[in-house]
Amino acid sequence: MTTIFDDIESEVQSYARAFPVIFERAKGSYLYDTDGKAYLDFLAGAGTLNYGHNNDILKAALLEYIQNDGITHGLDMHTKAKQEFLENLNNYIFKPRSLEYVVQFTGPTGTNAVEAAMKIARNVTGRHNIVAFTNGFHGVSLGSMAATGNSHHRDAAGIPLSGVTHVPYAGYMGEELDTIKLLENMLEDSSSGLDTPAAIMLETIQGEGGLNTASNEWLQAVEKLCRKHDILLIVDDIQAGCGRSGKFFSFEESGIKPDLVTMSKSLSGYGLPFAVTLIKPEYDTWKPGEHNGTFRGNNHAFVTAAAALKAFWSDDKFEKELKAKIDHLSMRLRKIAGGYEKNLIKSKGRGFMQGLECRDGELAGKICRYAFDKGLVIETSGADSQVVKCLCPLSISLDELNKGLDILEEAVHKTLAKELSAAS
Amino acid sequence: MTTIFDDIESEVQSYARAFPVIFERAKGSYLYDTDGKAYLDFLAGAGTLNYGHNNDILKAALLEYIQNDGITHGLDMHTKAKQEFLENLNNYIFKPRSLEYVVQFTGPTGTNAVEAAMKIARNVTGRHNIVAFTNGFHGVSLGSMAATGNSHHRDAAGIPLSGVTHVPYAGYMGEELDTIKLLENMLEDSSSGLDTPAAIMLETIQGEGGLNTASNEWLQAVEKLCRKHDILLIVDDIQAGCGRSGKFFSFEESGIKPDLVTMSKSLSGYGLPFAVTLIKPEYDTWKPGEHNGTFRGNNHAFVTAAAALKAFWSDDKFEKELKAKIDHLSMRLRKIAGGYEKNLIKSKGRGFMQGLECRDGELAGKICRYAFDKGLVIETSGADSQVVKCLCPLSISLDELNKGLDILEEAVHKTLAKELSAAS
Amino acid sequence: MTTIFDDIESEVQSYARAFPVIFERAKGSYLYDTDGKAYLDFLAGAGTLNYGHNNDILKAALLEYIQNDGITHGLDMHTKAKQEFLENLNNYIFKPRSLEYVVQFTGPTGTNAVEAAMKIARNVTGRHNIVAFTNGFHGVSLGSMAATGNSHHRDAAGIPLSGVTHVPYAGYMGEELDTIKLLENMLEDSSSGLDTPAAIMLETIQGEGGLNTASNEWLQAVEKLCRKHDILLIVDDIQAGCGRSGKFFSFEESGIKPDLVTMSKSLSGYGLPFAVTLIKPEYDTWKPGEHNGTFRGNNHAFVTAAAALKAFWSDDKFEKELKAKIDHLSMRLRKIAGGYEKNLIKSKGRGFMQGLECRDGELAGKICRYAFDKGLVIETSGADSQVVKCLCPLSISLDELNKGLDILEEAVHKTLAKELSAAS
Amino acid sequence: MTTIFDDIESEVQSYARAFPVIFERAKGSYLYDTDGKAYLDFLAGAGTLNYGHNNDILKAALLEYIQNDGITHGLDMHTKAKQEFLENLNNYIFKPRSLEYVVQFTGPTGTNAVEAAMKIARNVTGRHNIVAFTNGFHGVSLGSMAATGNSHHRDAAGIPLSGVTHVPYAGYMGEELDTIKLLENMLEDSSSGLDTPAAIMLETIQGEGGLNTASNEWLQAVEKLCRKHDILLIVDDIQAGCGRSGKFFSFEESGIKPDLVTMSKSLSGYGLPFAVTLIKPEYDTWKPGEHNGTFRGNNHAFVTAAAALKAFWSDDKFEKELKAKIDHLSMRLRKIAGGYEKNLIKSKGRGFMQGLECRDGELAGKICRYAFDKGLVIETSGADSQVVKCLCPLSISLDELNKGLDILEEAVHKTLAKELSAAS
Repeated sequence: MTTIFDDIESEVQSYARAFPVIFERAKGSYLYDTDGKAYLDFLAGAGTLNYGHNNDILKAALLEYIQNDGITHGLDMHTKAKQEFLENLNNYIFKPRSLEYVVQFTGPTGTNAVEAAMKIARNVTGRHNIVAFTNGFHGVSLGSMAATGNSHHRDAAGIPLSGVTHVPYAGYMGEELDTIKLLENMLEDSSSGLDTPAAIMLETIQGEGGLNTASNEWLQAVEKLCRKHDILLIVDDIQAGCGRSGKFFSFEESGIKPDLVTMSKSLSGYGLPFAVTLIKPEYDTWKPGEHNGTFRGNNHAFVTAAAALKAFWSDDKFEKELKAKIDHLSMRLRKIAGGYEKNLIKSKGRGFMQGLECRDGELAGKICRYAFDKGLVIETSGADSQVVKCLCPLSISLDELNKGLDILEEAVHKTLAKELSAAS
Repeated sequence: MTTIFDDIESEVQSYARAFPVIFERAKGSYLYDTDGKAYLDFLAGAGTLNYGHNNDILKAALLEYIQNDGITHGLDMHTKAKQEFLENLNNYIFKPRSLEYVVQFTGPTGTNAVEAAMKIARNVTGRHNIVAFTNGFHGVSLGSMAATGNSHHRDAAGIPLSGVTHVPYAGYMGEELDTIKLLENMLEDSSSGLDTPAAIMLETIQGEGGLNTASNEWLQAVEKLCRKHDILLIVDDIQAGCGRSGKFFSFEESGIKPDLVTMSKSLSGYGLPFAVTLIKPEYDTWKPGEHNGTFRGNNHAFVTAAAALKAFWSDDKFEKELKAKIDHLSMRLRKIAGGYEKNLIKSKGRGFMQGLECRDGELAGKICRYAFDKGLVIETSGADSQVVKCLCPLSISLDELNKGLDILEEAVHKTLAKELSAAS
Repeated sequence: MTTIFDDIESEVQSYARAFPVIFERAKGSYLYDTDGKAYLDFLAGAGTLNYGHNNDILKAALLEYIQNDGITHGLDMHTKAKQEFLENLNNYIFKPRSLEYVVQFTGPTGTNAVEAAMKIARNVTGRHNIVAFTNGFHGVSLGSMAATGNSHHRDAAGIPLSGVTHVPYAGYMGEELDTIKLLENMLEDSSSGLDTPAAIMLETIQGEGGLNTASNEWLQAVEKLCRKHDILLIVDDIQAGCGRSGKFFSFEESGIKPDLVTMSKSLSGYGLPFAVTLIKPEYDTWKPGEHNGTFRGNNHAFVTAAAALKAFWSDDKFEKELKAKIDHLSMRLRKIAGGYEKNLIKSKGRGFMQGLECRDGELAGKICRYAFDKGLVIETSGADSQVVKCLCPLSISLDELNKGLDILEEAVHKTLAKELSAAS
Repeated sequence: MTTIFDDIESEVQSYARAFPVIFERAKGSYLYDTDGKAYLDFLAGAGTLNYGHNNDILKAALLEYIQNDGITHGLDMHTKAKQEFLENLNNYIFKPRSLEYVVQFTGPTGTNAVEAAMKIARNVTGRHNIVAFTNGFHGVSLGSMAATGNSHHRDAAGIPLSGVTHVPYAGYMGEELDTIKLLENMLEDSSSGLDTPAAIMLETIQGEGGLNTASNEWLQAVEKLCRKHDILLIVDDIQAGCGRSGKFFSFEESGIKPDLVTMSKSLSGYGLPFAVTLIKPEYDTWKPGEHNGTFRGNNHAFVTAAAALKAFWSDDKFEKELKAKIDHLSMRLRKIAGGYEKNLIKSKGRGFMQGLECRDGELAGKICRYAFDKGLVIETSGADSQVVKCLCPLSISLDELNKGLDILEEAVHKTLAKELSAAS
């Protein structure tokens, strides 16, 4: 018997194929299917559920708001809920970090925040080109897709993508090449064919690109290059932001001050659609309504976001616990991969964006499927889907983390044992 | 004293400028500001709140779902909530209308649904061009913005927009020109410079474009042209759909069967971000995950959407009431404009997308400001913001409708009296 | 036995297919093949040989120049030959017509002159879009091809063509539509989707497009629209210029003063590659070498061009004779087509760009093939190659003209007789 | 008193500024101005006059042809002159080198040949992207300009250039980076953002780019990469071809077999406009007339080209003499630069495309101006015009070569002496 999904949902489905059950409820680090079976969630909405599923503090705030008929949809009008979100963002995030940004409420998707950032950069500088990096992922609407490296998405455009030049990301050629030096040469060579860009756009940790990371020094060098050539620096912090790197912003440790920051995913804290573009005030040159959209005022998201900022970021408790869990995760991943050759499997990443890079996507896929059979939802990323990615909720308990890693460990060892015996 | 909005919200704000209060609650046809003042809402989230604010049936369903820790964020995974939405859509909408579509859950914004539709059309046909119409509005991400006519939005792109050819919409040159004949000539003239398009994309009623309407004959002629040249027909029903035209789909009356339909705005029924692209099964050529996005699985929206479909579209009661209210609206708008010269003010539009076209945007703006002072939220649209647009909730009571129209009537007469006396 | 052309010349050959002989010599209005057979030339290098083949005055000047080792190739350096060309152009063409232009020596092909004009317009205005017309032909390099309407050429681009909007040319919808009014509406409607162009580019008579003509009033209306919106007016006079319309410039009669004029084809007078872009001095904002190319200094062409300007344009003798021949041509073409229904065959065009529009390309092709068999080289143009085009040398004698028209007349009558008898 | 050039020639003039005299005659390696002053020509029409000015063998052939009223302008029709050119090309060039190409006669400019090659590659592969290299120069019409690296030209486009990705040329990062390895990585990484190209287009020696050279190994590696990924290999041999590298084709030594080769500049041998695209027969998928243009049949150029091929390439005499002169040139340039630090001045290049790379463009400019005062026409190239380029006629005598190099040597020593004393 076919399901309604077989009958009338598009073939574009993706995660649904990897996890072929019907989910019904979720709480904290767990998903439950319609049979009540529990799954530990190491995917967390692809980094959207940093505080876990249906967090009780946020849930209470949302229920109360709905109960009282708070504004649900407010276009871009001023509302009480938006006011509180802005105040909390200012008090708990901007001020303690000495950051000065204005907030643009874009359409509530990451790609829309990226489109807005690209427009700003182009209008402020009068230049059309934007430099993005190999393995970067920034969305699949036409503007942001031009900055996305993945050919699976690019080829679906149906028209050539333009306006973006891709250059090698940190470590793209290993030790052989200082990728910043190459970018610098191309920028300073008036005959390189690289049109001076409006902006350089990057992720500090490439989530979809396979957990590649940029060092603080590399980020600082990019910022310096931007300042020298009056290029705007855009950090796409959609996946790495909201604490996933260990800090609220993924670039905090490096000390750089991006001109534009895109945020989404875990911003609402509850998994509700929400996205903003942070803009240095001097670049907020928008005319009224130039970039618009119906759902810029998703007030439910404002409510949970305001509550999340207060609950998790008004003091340093959450951040400190996070650090401990990240260290533990790093240690265990190194240990899991430790016994194997590095080109077979190795640990990779930073913060709560760590995982295991496998020889190929087939191997990584087998590990994930094994894990799912054991009740662990975990996915791959990277050009060849070769990286098993632990995107746990940041709020996960140490016990849950260990439980999930135990399953992953078993999945790795069992899968590799089979591989190695088949090969010999 | 400046507010937090002055301090850290971007200058891109638009509606917030027209309605300079802070809204807090909303119910049915009313918005309430932080002082408890009520405003009758003839804007309805720009057509997003067809069933009014915080409708009690939908609210109850949503509260129960949240209370029970239903999945909030589900990427594109199968969930109980999605299942129910698909079933209701199939049973209450597709089947009774003999429509066969598969449903793509795009990012939850109209522009994303449009981007997806444009990709499909380009990939299915192998052509790059898309024909759109003068005064069309389809969103402001790079792909859909190319199809949007408005230069205010287009100029913000920062790069040339390409891949779309704009041709005159129905009635663009009044009686002088059969715009379909022109399009046909250009399509059939191999030297016209019009590259044979992948798709023709249109709104049956142009909401942002100023309430221009296409007749059934015109729509049928477009469909015929599409069939003749193997061009896909996309109806962007984001604003005109979900009942606003008087039927669930705005194209029902014409009998055409678009190949692709984009829906958003009132689809969730509660103002929650949600968008889908409906695809004739034979064109559902997506590969898994080709068009993706984090918030395709906004389950709260599935819950309220499923409830709304059942509450309003499982029988013909709502539609019949709607017809009566639309007739009443038409009659009153004709009457309001009746005493004036047509180039000063005239009624316009179809369904619950009717309004008053004024001589210019300045006059329309004055009328809206007068109305707001009297407690009516109402906005303009059109190239010069010259059309006062009654986008009331479809669920509005006759009393509320009359109350709002009374204010509008007074606003028109008072404003025009002032104008005419100043002119004489 | 295959020839060297079969063996190693590309399949891109076009005219060679219609006239499958090997030509060796040419003089005046005649071509001669390797067997010495004479062909009367009603194609004249597609309008490149306005003064006939190997005109004796020009030939003498060229022979002397070569004999004396005059500079042949001079990049863009100042040479005696270029000096004389500029002086003659100034004295015989610009001054008597009160035209003020500077001359840019572009690469020696029409398409290169068009590319230069498009660049200037874009740089001067800071806008990217250029308006061109249905059935316009401006060349097949990527920039000018975007302005060319013909899909046969456009489809060969291999990438989407952008930066140009095509609108209906004069008379495109017959009497039904004032095409200037449509363009005006689209320009003045800020939501039409027509990006305000840098330039409007047109041919006053569309040679490749099928001998469509614009009236003086239409041209004046375009110029007025340009002035109103600070749009540059480009007249592509590559085919219609150098006397082919009856005047040196095809736009003289209308009194308009284009901002940019492209010239090529008959400019050298001898069939040598040569092209210039004329620029109103205030728009000559080129930086040194911005638009360059190896053969901008084809001095042989300067020599024959200077001689041609002196021989044919230093007094009004040539122009007066031309008028008489044009009147004769018009009269005879009307007469040839006179006995048939207009949708079968009708006369068309202006100046020495007149011909016969046939029901379809097949019929036009048959007429041309019949004519070639009788010793007349004549070709078709138009979207469907449906227009038989009399592009005789302007220097043709009345006898030769009549001789050619006699052949054409016979070809028409015989071909149509066969058609009509087959149909009945 | 202003000249006609001041009065009515566009500001786009470039070489005319560096050599502010009026040239009148030219012969062999010498130019003569209107005062009869002789200038030794180390520019040679930017590589267009490989056989010197007005070579007597070619001159005789051309004079005889014109005298006999040979076809001058033949569109793309078959002519006796074209036949002889094709036969000589086949017999003296293709056959001895075992090359199989068909010949496309494009518009007679290098940029047009490049536009044609790019179209073919895109149509054959169905891909839009083309990989070109840093510091490459391929022309300034819109298509080829996208492949040109120089921002001076690119910025003049007035619209963004697209469809080409620039990657680092051989040696771009010195020893640090294997540029082929980087290109290979980006091609094989499905997430690099580099769209698989239709073609890789390169110059084996970058003339305008500053005499950068690719080794045989590097060229072979590019060819291998092309074969592996079904990418077409285009060698733009416009400047380096026709003997300038020491062989007829610049890629002969490397043994690679490009799929497409563009030729122009010295092809006619006499400085007449002429260009062809050579196409491997299997890729000659043109439809008749798809890529057209008025001056594809410049028969004067066919005549001189046929004569040049016979005179210089029917045996190996010319090539052998060339080798001796090139060795001498190399030796003298090394010696001239020998006494200085390499970052101040150093010799560079290959074949008769050698020169001196100076610290900066200012220094190189001073050297050229000094030389011109002494009667030597010589120019710079490179991103900052920092390379003094010896583009002598290949036919130069050893005496003339030494005479020119003596002037250059003096110019270098005198200019540097002044520089170094000023610096100390």
